[in-house]
Amino acid sequence: MTDLKIVGIPGSLRKNAYSTGLLHAAVELAPEGSQVELAETSGFPVFNQDDEGNPPEPVRRLKEKVRAADAVLFSVNEHNYGLSAAEKNVLDWGSRPYADNVWNGKPAGIMSASIGMVGGARAQYDLRQSMVFLNMFPINRPEVIVGMAAQKFDAAGRLTDEAARRFIHDHLVELVRYARLLLRKP
Amino acid sequence: MTDLKIVGIPGSLRKNAYSTGLLHAAVELAPEGSQVELAETSGFPVFNQDDEGNPPEPVRRLKEKVRAADAVLFSVNEHNYGLSAAEKNVLDWGSRPYADNVWNGKPAGIMSASIGMVGGARAQYDLRQSMVFLNMFPINRPEVIVGMAAQKFDAAGRLTDEAARRFIHDHLVELVRYARLLLRKP
Amino acid sequence: MTDLKIVGIPGSLRKNAYSTGLLHAAVELAPEGSQVELAETSGFPVFNQDDEGNPPEPVRRLKEKVRAADAVLFSVNEHNYGLSAAEKNVLDWGSRPYADNVWNGKPAGIMSASIGMVGGARAQYDLRQSMVFLNMFPINRPEVIVGMAAQKFDAAGRLTDEAARRFIHDHLVELVRYARLLLRKP
Amino acid sequence: MTDLKIVGIPGSLRKNAYSTGLLHAAVELAPEGSQVELAETSGFPVFNQDDEGNPPEPVRRLKEKVRAADAVLFSVNEHNYGLSAAEKNVLDWGSRPYADNVWNGKPAGIMSASIGMVGGARAQYDLRQSMVFLNMFPINRPEVIVGMAAQKFDAAGRLTDEAARRFIHDHLVELVRYARLLLRKP
Repeated sequence: MTDLKIVGIPGSLRKNAYSTGLLHAAVELAPEGSQVELAETSGFPVFNQDDEGNPPEPVRRLKEKVRAADAVLFSVNEHNYGLSAAEKNVLDWGSRPYADNVWNGKPAGIMSASIGMVGGARAQYDLRQSMVFLNMFPINRPEVIVGMAAQKFDAAGRLTDEAARRFIHDHLVELVRYARLLLRKP
Repeated sequence: MTDLKIVGIPGSLRKNAYSTGLLHAAVELAPEGSQVELAETSGFPVFNQDDEGNPPEPVRRLKEKVRAADAVLFSVNEHNYGLSAAEKNVLDWGSRPYADNVWNGKPAGIMSASIGMVGGARAQYDLRQSMVFLNMFPINRPEVIVGMAAQKFDAAGRLTDEAARRFIHDHLVELVRYARLLLRKP
Repeated sequence: MTDLKIVGIPGSLRKNAYSTGLLHAAVELAPEGSQVELAETSGFPVFNQDDEGNPPEPVRRLKEKVRAADAVLFSVNEHNYGLSAAEKNVLDWGSRPYADNVWNGKPAGIMSASIGMVGGARAQYDLRQSMVFLNMFPINRPEVIVGMAAQKFDAAGRLTDEAARRFIHDHLVELVRYARLLLRKP
Repeated sequence: MTDLKIVGIPGSLRKNAYSTGLLHAAVELAPEGSQVELAETSGFPVFNQDDEGNPPEPVRRLKEKVRAADAVLFSVNEHNYGLSAAEKNVLDWGSRPYADNVWNGKPAGIMSASIGMVGGARAQYDLRQSMVFLNMFPINRPEVIVGMAAQKFDAAGRLTDEAARRFIHDHLVELVRYARLLLRKP
């Protein structure tokens, strides 16, 4: 049994974003037989379809990394009740040209964090709607929606809330189970 | 009675995007007592909250233009069943810092175009969800959803479909009516 | 200046639903110059378009009451991440036949409550999407999303949480302001 | 290899609804090794959580039928840009009490029809959002969105449009493939 490779996609360009903190926790919490590795998503220009045939180097590297992964783990940052522009930009670049949509067929997990109570939930369902067109296969449970995030990380940006860490672990266990089924990976 | 100023926000960076074509039609179809003028949204970097206090020059100009307008007219381009990254990026830059959200309180119209049957409708409702947080006031009817767009523009990119042009005109009439009420502009 | 009449629409048929508790609070908290009165929504059959021309008596009474109101206040109950069937049923009956859509043009407020953190927020945006077709005009701020509801009501079902009560009051103030503008009621 | 059993859930109580017509087509178009059978969803009262422990006989029969099926095929009827009350009512009854959610873990297909261009697409994404909580596993492609439905059925209510029939067939092929993977049914 080879390790299941999960690529983590940050939802924010901000240094020390809570959503990126969730991904760092996921790296630590990946269940045996799997590994989570973060993708680099800075340095992308705003997607312009006129340029889709000739993506810049950082986009190429992201696409290569996603292509090589068995599953994708998004950490969503909600801006104005929707996906952040940064995250939508990564989705759009990764999906084009249509014949080279690297998200196609990938099993996916979704997490989000915010300082309010709703925890980024609204943006999660926007992402799920995009996944229909992208042909991704997201899991359902447990949802990882980390509200009141300012109280759940320590000064160094490490997620310390035990309930949140357990949700992330259980989310990854389900993602691994589901990905092995979908990909027929024993 | 002074003219009601409507700023048009393109949803795509693509040259010759159908959604931009709708805005050019709107400029021609603005009812008496109103004028539509397009904003420039190219040259923006991807929004990073760390930089929100010091936006680049093209963002400043966009914010100035929206601030000076009575109402906003979005022309949505659907990418992957959601708002294009380019359009979300304009929304996010314009909304920050929170105390300087230029969309706040503005009446708004929404149009979309696509080559498929659904005509960008999905992305319109994503935009409406963002508008709740942004505190914008979108009108409802008639919706301008231009499906099968490839058949509705001429070779020079001018919208020629009479039904679509009538919808845009009626949408603008309703936007002007609603904006005058909201803004108590006689 | 006559009182602005607001009709409250419960989102649940359950006795003692938290969402209905919010409406009872709204009756108490209506600002001067306005009054909130609850509609009765029990006894409706499930909407069947074949019967739309001949609605049963409880539906007729609901439609009469909404028609006579200046504004509508929905209290949403989230079931399975969407509007409850009971609430969607009231919306659908009230909207048909198309020429007799009683929601048409009404300003609207929206509240929700749930025992979880997300507080019914998901269902609020579903309702807003329906409002586009119904041609209703919902306000934006402040949103009334009452999470952890089990801790915010007393044994008699009265909303005791001060922050929630203040949000409801402020929501009503904004609804009254907006309705007077839209309806040109001084 | 035993046949994969798919239960079809109508989205409308209307006699001769187009959405029900899609289900009749699906019965004919089920690929070898599968069968589609329609559930009966009339005679349900509006869901009231106070009664969830003691559902009426038609609800019991629906739940039994879904429990016995390997997969579910919804045919959505869009009312007021959302799921019809009738369909949401079936979802809500079937999901309660929580420990007896019959939708839990089921693979699912989704179709919709409407007389307009958008073909019920908006309601499909509402259903997908509910499926997250219900823990259902919907497929993505090809989506079956039948716009302009009035031109695609004959006088007897049979779907005659060849493109629509092919989409339904291909949707079922994908549903069968996916269900066999998820359920580890060879």
